[in-house]
Amino acid sequence: MTDRTVYFVSDGTGITAETFGNSILAQFTIKPRHIRRPFIDTSEKAYAVVREINEMAEREGKRPIVFLTLVDREVLKIVRDHCKGRVMDMFGTFIEPLEEEFEAKSNHRVGRFSDIAKSQEYHDRIEAINFSLAHDDGQSAKNLDVADVILVGVSRSGKTPTSLYLAMQHGIKAANYPLIPEDFERDRLPTSLAPHRRKCFGLTIDPDRLSQIRNERRPGSKYADLMNCRYEINEAEKMMKREGINWLSSTHKSIEEIATTILNDIRPDRLVY
Amino acid sequence: MTDRTVYFVSDGTGITAETFGNSILAQFTIKPRHIRRPFIDTSEKAYAVVREINEMAEREGKRPIVFLTLVDREVLKIVRDHCKGRVMDMFGTFIEPLEEEFEAKSNHRVGRFSDIAKSQEYHDRIEAINFSLAHDDGQSAKNLDVADVILVGVSRSGKTPTSLYLAMQHGIKAANYPLIPEDFERDRLPTSLAPHRRKCFGLTIDPDRLSQIRNERRPGSKYADLMNCRYEINEAEKMMKREGINWLSSTHKSIEEIATTILNDIRPDRLVY
Repeated sequence: MTDRTVYFVSDGTGITAETFGNSILAQFTIKPRHIRRPFIDTSEKAYAVVREINEMAEREGKRPIVFLTLVDREVLKIVRDHCKGRVMDMFGTFIEPLEEEFEAKSNHRVGRFSDIAKSQEYHDRIEAINFSLAHDDGQSAKNLDVADVILVGVSRSGKTPTSLYLAMQHGIKAANYPLIPEDFERDRLPTSLAPHRRKCFGLTIDPDRLSQIRNERRPGSKYADLMNCRYEINEAEKMMKREGINWLSSTHKSIEEIATTILNDIRPDRLVY
Repeated sequence: MTDRTVYFVSDGTGITAETFGNSILAQFTIKPRHIRRPFIDTSEKAYAVVREINEMAEREGKRPIVFLTLVDREVLKIVRDHCKGRVMDMFGTFIEPLEEEFEAKSNHRVGRFSDIAKSQEYHDRIEAINFSLAHDDGQSAKNLDVADVILVGVSRSGKTPTSLYLAMQHGIKAANYPLIPEDFERDRLPTSLAPHRRKCFGLTIDPDRLSQIRNERRPGSKYADLMNCRYEINEAEKMMKREGINWLSSTHKSIEEIATTILNDIRPDRLVY
């Protein structure tokens, strides 16, 4: 933590801009303090946040970095004109060239999600989250025909967080199904998966890492034992190879990277973006 | 859908930039086609994507919009120099002023999440997701003392997707607990919640909307009946008032907006950002 402060000022939630801003700041070793000021949608609130930023600038002797995502022109003008921080106008920077390119004015509508709670896209996302929850860990084999993807892999290979991420971020109906020792003994895909083999995508993981993760949950168990982890992963990979299921290793990947790789591979029809 | 195409080209997943880019594009009525090209991390891949973009420009007679999040200088140079699209350099635009401001070079490390799979922040996020799943819908009253927030409200008021979003986006351990008719008859908070009242945050919802949502799940049931929804919501709000629990209405709000409002209210200590 340093004496440098970064503000995220938005007239909406500012979440998308903040997440993106964080990925830019991650390019520096400096670790500034983050202050989030969402819903700044009136002149009064704009002046209040300007005062706060200017006091901070004075106190710290260094001007704060101020990431703005303000679509309201009046609020934007107040902050730009009076704020003593280093302003990064994340919207304006791109809106202006796009207006030129599209030969159309932007609508300056506050918040990506205004009234979106009723939109089809939003409804689909919530549906996808509910679907992924209901089909977590092979809980239900019902409606697997409407799944966009079914993640398969041994317990703790990363299926659950990846399914939820696919649903939440991309509105993808992602079921997940654990491969268990019984499946390996039977030497074939679980019966409920067989008709959906083409929608399956496998996750595997390094046995040492798996053993470590499982030991956090059940220390000293057979489940967590390295030899057992090796056996399960070996069998799971053999099965995926035999069934022609694409897979990746989650060992060094974040859920964002896993999800992006899966989307690249399955390219579901219903994915809008 | 128009004849205009937008590319998102990244040497990482490009997800944060794409989500942010979408919120910028949402300011226009034009609905361009989206093409995602993640993991463009070699000269070969850069030239391939340039060829693809240039062919598209020729075919459509309009230059594509190309959002770039490339930290690799060589790849960036290839795309900038040869691509006939309208380039929006989402990283460079902000990295340069920040380098000046921080008096430090950025490290041009590819991907926000490179090797992050092992970082503490990432570990905490995964932990939070597991916590929120284990404490969904009042499934477990164990470990509620380590929860950052406990969402309370009637069934289908939006608790589950909000908890998962808080966990996934912010690494917040968010439990959720349904208020059921038995709780209203007893006229007090569920016993397991009582010691944690100060961490509770309420969600309420318009009865008509609730009835509509519940009817999708159980058509014609008492559960979905409008009169019953009115009763439950009225009792839930009475309880929250009496117990001094802050709440908001999820009716017209997206999970992003609900989550941001909750964070503004609870300001958990362990929230890094």
